[in-house]
Amino acid sequence: ITVIVKLPSCFLQGILERLDAGEIVIGDGGFVFALEKRGYVKAGPWTPEATVEHPEAVRQLHREFLRAGSNILQTFTFYASEDKLENRGNYVAEKISCQKVNEAACDIAREVANEGDALVAGGVSQTPSYLSCKDKTEVKAAFQKQLEVFMKKDVDFLIAEYFEHVEEAVWAVEVLKQSGKPVAATMCIGPEGDMHGVSPGQCAVQLVKAGASIVGVNCHFDPETSIETMRLMKEGLQAAKLKAHLMCQPLAFHTPDCGKQGFIDLPEFPFGLEPRIATRWDIQKYARKAYDLGIRFIGGCCGFEPYHIRAIAEELAPERGFLPEASEKHGTWGDSLSMHTKPWVRARARKEYWENLKPASGRPYCPCMSKPDGWGVTKGAKELMQQKEATTEQQLKELFQKKKF
Amino acid sequence: ITVIVKLPSCFLQGILERLDAGEIVIGDGGFVFALEKRGYVKAGPWTPEATVEHPEAVRQLHREFLRAGSNILQTFTFYASEDKLENRGNYVAEKISCQKVNEAACDIAREVANEGDALVAGGVSQTPSYLSCKDKTEVKAAFQKQLEVFMKKDVDFLIAEYFEHVEEAVWAVEVLKQSGKPVAATMCIGPEGDMHGVSPGQCAVQLVKAGASIVGVNCHFDPETSIETMRLMKEGLQAAKLKAHLMCQPLAFHTPDCGKQGFIDLPEFPFGLEPRIATRWDIQKYARKAYDLGIRFIGGCCGFEPYHIRAIAEELAPERGFLPEASEKHGTWGDSLSMHTKPWVRARARKEYWENLKPASGRPYCPCMSKPDGWGVTKGAKELMQQKEATTEQQLKELFQKKKF
Amino acid sequence: ITVIVKLPSCFLQGILERLDAGEIVIGDGGFVFALEKRGYVKAGPWTPEATVEHPEAVRQLHREFLRAGSNILQTFTFYASEDKLENRGNYVAEKISCQKVNEAACDIAREVANEGDALVAGGVSQTPSYLSCKDKTEVKAAFQKQLEVFMKKDVDFLIAEYFEHVEEAVWAVEVLKQSGKPVAATMCIGPEGDMHGVSPGQCAVQLVKAGASIVGVNCHFDPETSIETMRLMKEGLQAAKLKAHLMCQPLAFHTPDCGKQGFIDLPEFPFGLEPRIATRWDIQKYARKAYDLGIRFIGGCCGFEPYHIRAIAEELAPERGFLPEASEKHGTWGDSLSMHTKPWVRARARKEYWENLKPASGRPYCPCMSKPDGWGVTKGAKELMQQKEATTEQQLKELFQKKKF
Amino acid sequence: ITVIVKLPSCFLQGILERLDAGEIVIGDGGFVFALEKRGYVKAGPWTPEATVEHPEAVRQLHREFLRAGSNILQTFTFYASEDKLENRGNYVAEKISCQKVNEAACDIAREVANEGDALVAGGVSQTPSYLSCKDKTEVKAAFQKQLEVFMKKDVDFLIAEYFEHVEEAVWAVEVLKQSGKPVAATMCIGPEGDMHGVSPGQCAVQLVKAGASIVGVNCHFDPETSIETMRLMKEGLQAAKLKAHLMCQPLAFHTPDCGKQGFIDLPEFPFGLEPRIATRWDIQKYARKAYDLGIRFIGGCCGFEPYHIRAIAEELAPERGFLPEASEKHGTWGDSLSMHTKPWVRARARKEYWENLKPASGRPYCPCMSKPDGWGVTKGAKELMQQKEATTEQQLKELFQKKKF
Repeated sequence: ITVIVKLPSCFLQGILERLDAGEIVIGDGGFVFALEKRGYVKAGPWTPEATVEHPEAVRQLHREFLRAGSNILQTFTFYASEDKLENRGNYVAEKISCQKVNEAACDIAREVANEGDALVAGGVSQTPSYLSCKDKTEVKAAFQKQLEVFMKKDVDFLIAEYFEHVEEAVWAVEVLKQSGKPVAATMCIGPEGDMHGVSPGQCAVQLVKAGASIVGVNCHFDPETSIETMRLMKEGLQAAKLKAHLMCQPLAFHTPDCGKQGFIDLPEFPFGLEPRIATRWDIQKYARKAYDLGIRFIGGCCGFEPYHIRAIAEELAPERGFLPEASEKHGTWGDSLSMHTKPWVRARARKEYWENLKPASGRPYCPCMSKPDGWGVTKGAKELMQQKEATTEQQLKELFQKKKF
Repeated sequence: ITVIVKLPSCFLQGILERLDAGEIVIGDGGFVFALEKRGYVKAGPWTPEATVEHPEAVRQLHREFLRAGSNILQTFTFYASEDKLENRGNYVAEKISCQKVNEAACDIAREVANEGDALVAGGVSQTPSYLSCKDKTEVKAAFQKQLEVFMKKDVDFLIAEYFEHVEEAVWAVEVLKQSGKPVAATMCIGPEGDMHGVSPGQCAVQLVKAGASIVGVNCHFDPETSIETMRLMKEGLQAAKLKAHLMCQPLAFHTPDCGKQGFIDLPEFPFGLEPRIATRWDIQKYARKAYDLGIRFIGGCCGFEPYHIRAIAEELAPERGFLPEASEKHGTWGDSLSMHTKPWVRARARKEYWENLKPASGRPYCPCMSKPDGWGVTKGAKELMQQKEATTEQQLKELFQKKKF
Repeated sequence: ITVIVKLPSCFLQGILERLDAGEIVIGDGGFVFALEKRGYVKAGPWTPEATVEHPEAVRQLHREFLRAGSNILQTFTFYASEDKLENRGNYVAEKISCQKVNEAACDIAREVANEGDALVAGGVSQTPSYLSCKDKTEVKAAFQKQLEVFMKKDVDFLIAEYFEHVEEAVWAVEVLKQSGKPVAATMCIGPEGDMHGVSPGQCAVQLVKAGASIVGVNCHFDPETSIETMRLMKEGLQAAKLKAHLMCQPLAFHTPDCGKQGFIDLPEFPFGLEPRIATRWDIQKYARKAYDLGIRFIGGCCGFEPYHIRAIAEELAPERGFLPEASEKHGTWGDSLSMHTKPWVRARARKEYWENLKPASGRPYCPCMSKPDGWGVTKGAKELMQQKEATTEQQLKELFQKKKF
Repeated sequence: ITVIVKLPSCFLQGILERLDAGEIVIGDGGFVFALEKRGYVKAGPWTPEATVEHPEAVRQLHREFLRAGSNILQTFTFYASEDKLENRGNYVAEKISCQKVNEAACDIAREVANEGDALVAGGVSQTPSYLSCKDKTEVKAAFQKQLEVFMKKDVDFLIAEYFEHVEEAVWAVEVLKQSGKPVAATMCIGPEGDMHGVSPGQCAVQLVKAGASIVGVNCHFDPETSIETMRLMKEGLQAAKLKAHLMCQPLAFHTPDCGKQGFIDLPEFPFGLEPRIATRWDIQKYARKAYDLGIRFIGGCCGFEPYHIRAIAEELAPERGFLPEASEKHGTWGDSLSMHTKPWVRARARKEYWENLKPASGRPYCPCMSKPDGWGVTKGAKELMQQKEATTEQQLKELFQKKKF
């Protein structure tokens, strides 16, 4: 039987010390999706002004991940670069400055981290400036601005995440690296590589060469696909004789039908993804596979709720020697059902049961897979687009010419 | 275009004044399921000791429902009768008294209700005492004990919910009715009626005769099935020439394959229900159907997250004239996607799109429907049970004899 | 082990002698669907001019059913009434008389029946005259004309099958009964009863009172649904204290999603039904259920191929004491795989394997169920209809007024 | 409108003249599967003794394919090598010589070919001798023996088909080539190549170098996968600057979930494949894709029934200028429904309707995809095997050592 214990205080070391020592580090889950469902983030813009508007909601979600086993609390600064906030600014009730959003995010994360013994990671993500073909200087300036907040608030390390183009990710790593703090970098790519065709292996190599100590993937693809991408990254690093820690933070949605650009192109994105949500048992399988591949920074992205993070912590409890706090409210492999009044529900209090369950969708009129939308993919998408875009045709042409989609 | 406005203060009337005036009242969602995923409730016992252990988590969930549009905040007192808490007491780290749990629940609900203009409803649910064949006096005493807290804390009205047997529900209503406060009563039944074979129509009639002003169903079945049960209740009341307000708080899971006892018997209960989770659009359809049937107290139960409640509020915004606060972070029918960089994602910013989407499960190895477990239903269930129950055979026999399953 | 033996000559008795003696009589399968796939029948008209145009194809199909275990060969005279052949006459390359089609059908069936020891049943089915509101005299005349051929060719007994309205079926039985030969009657209805709302039980009662010795259902619904309809027919007869033999010839398609009018209204009818085709194991389950309900005339309709009929014969071999000729080319429950070079294919040579297999569709982009088309059922159907029907609006209105659809 | 015409007599040229002239040649469908369902072939052995035992059944199937549009009638000599027939000999009621089976097959095919203007192709397939590691001389002798019959009966050309190892296929081509008749060669492989790891491109190259004028694939995979394999073969030939005609005869089953060894390893093989059966519209799509890739010998294998072959002929009617005889009983794209009494069925008489239909399986308890069985693939398969194989463990070990599975 595994016992819940508080982490030894010696555990509270830096991210690299911990990974170097072979420890398993558990990341957190997806903020924009979880907070969208809770009413604090708007799908589409996906910006984190809630850190200022509703700090209690952000704090509570951090706390839930902490209790579920997260060793890392990422500042809720996704899409919080100045250009992005401006770009989407019309959605924010009263204009909130980029700096305020980032500072509040750091404060909240640190406050909750101190309730346990987690590290705080300052995070940057891809910018609209890059997609608008602005130059390296301008893009780097955006990251620099966020970095200044992270330095002022003294986060424990930095994560550059959610990059579709390795070129931009490298720029981000270069900026973050100047801080002297450890840098992790993850791309939102699948086995086919980045949007310019750079393979996962090559992406990993470039990121490590740019200064990242930890590399991997986040978002856009399901755990199974992401594990495959990680395998390619690992092979790329090995072939280049480079060393780095591996990190994986996939979706908690099943997306076997994704194309190169991941779940954005699925017809269900973002308001019809429910039937794809992973069970806790799916996530336990993912945690085991990630561990077996040698990944030691294991977390999640969009769709990961606190109980998914707990599933990682429970799966790897034998290796780690302890369970997270939230396991007080969870029986391993369903054993909290062993006292149920119905014998057939009691019969579900077993690992074999949940491991082998093929859960029904309850939706007999729906299919199992979708064809992704996208240029050249479906005629339907184009037609819808045409109906929709009558007034923005010029904009559409420009997008085409720039091949920015 | 619908505008977000604060409710007029005149709105803050009692539940019956509001329903009598023809207003639509929106309930809240499912606490035990939501808090289980957040790490504060244990599946199996499903008891609400979190009101004492982690009040901030309960408060936050209430607040999210309030922002999403709930006009009613139910005290988180599900399964908080003394016999239940004792029965499941071994799960609670340190023994917490029934009274403390119920009092804390009232305080938290009131605190959040005051952040807006919601009413607080004290809730009781079915007791283990009834199932153990204890007598009417004993069962009523359990409800009485909870009621005393509700009176002390001066809740706005009372709800007797989640009853499988109309006999026990009637007893609950009789107790609650003595308080002088309005009483609502919902049963967790489907079109086949209660566990003793009483039809939905007859259940409604008995509950109204016992003193309930509002009757309906909650939990155990999906919205579509629950609407059908409500139709039968309504017909029963009409046939008996009785008047009562109608209330519906179904699951946010698709369960077309349920048997008489609802989703408990589905093989996916409770840890593999993800593929069955309703989308916001499914809930909009439910809200419309409920409204069309004449139901005016419309909420949800297990599986309902804040965004599902918001979906009810958005669907009925034309009738009500306002949107909830959380709609600031939500575009009606997906229109927050209208600025997306990808044209095919922009093309999803339309009612027709989401209304007609048949969302894929992403699970090609899983079926669409399951056969419910249960006595006489599946051989498999029995075999599993036999494997499981070797050491509790005596207990099994006793269960059989008492027909308590 | 069950041995293949020739039927004892004493077996060759009339249909009623056999059923009265408690024997199981196996019907044949679906001619129009099988011959459509072989290239000899046109979907839409579904008329049997192949008896004249390509007798060898009809003969071969009869022979296959005989070898598969059919004790009854129905003359291929479906939709061969004069009014139907005229109505659809434009499809027939050169005009072939109703009499020639019916005579050829009798000759072919008898020729093949003599290759074994089967009985020949002359069959009539519903007429366009009835649907066009022609009167009883006219409709009866159509049946009379076919009957004259059956008498001249001396078939062994008569079947009135595929009636949607019991009124017409009764007329048919009245005509056929005059011949002095035993009469069987089956309706293409489900548990909801005939198109005028007459329940299955009442239909059975009326048919027996009109003179049918054998009653039941054929076509339009899957085996499971048809067994349910048969149960209602049996109960109806019992309640009326009437005695008759029971007969069931369902589809070999899975149609859990049918409405009242059966598979015609499914969007897949008739050219996309493939994923619904029953396996041989599905049919063995059907045969067992039919037997258990007391049905002793067990066959099939559309979709039933020779191997489906063999499945009935194999399932009931223990009761009957022999296997059909075609079982020489079939191992019971897959045991012909026991010599396969791959061990995992050998592992399929077991009853448990095939009994429990949930066969995958190989179609991840397709759903499991469809919504039936029809008046009032789907908006889509109506819109398509409107597009299609511009030139026949008058006809459409007339159909509506007459409620003939 | 396309008119049905008899082929001009000048059309009756040799296979190479026709392909060289750019004509589309339509193959036939799958004999062993079709005749298994009709009761004349035993699954497992899959041997063609029916040519002697029941020539009328074989003749009728040939005739149906001819009428459906087949320009090529393959002799029903699949698995008719002497070693195979002996190996499976215990299944044949009375011992029939290899020579008799092959001679009868030639006679029947020629007889039916003469009813129209089709060519007769003598066919050989892989031998058990090869799999038992017998040497080249012995394997070639088996082919030689069949070839002697084909020469005596003067078939029009030869097909070596259903080879899993290109080495054996090359041997077959070498033997057949000595006859001076044109030789076609198809392998039952997918995009991953043959069982020894030779890529499709390399397989094609080796076959052409060995003397095949026509190369391609047959069986084991669905049309979509087979088209992909053909693309790789075509690219291989182009890279090697070799010229050959392309030929494709896939399954009429949907098998997106196949592993390297194709549908044999699917749990549904061979008695639960029904839900995977292709519709006629699926086959029209296949025919179009095959044509677009430059394939001009287009037919089918297991699962192809006459109406599937007709679908090829109808899809390519615009290119060929005529329809097959069996199209007299088929309206293009469902137009035979345009006279149906129900408007919503009439609405199905359209190309768009059938082209876009996603046919439901009617099986809500079944999944869409399966995991293939096989060594190392599923634990389940191994366990079943162990249960099954207690008495043949020695045999199992030998199989393992020889890697013959």
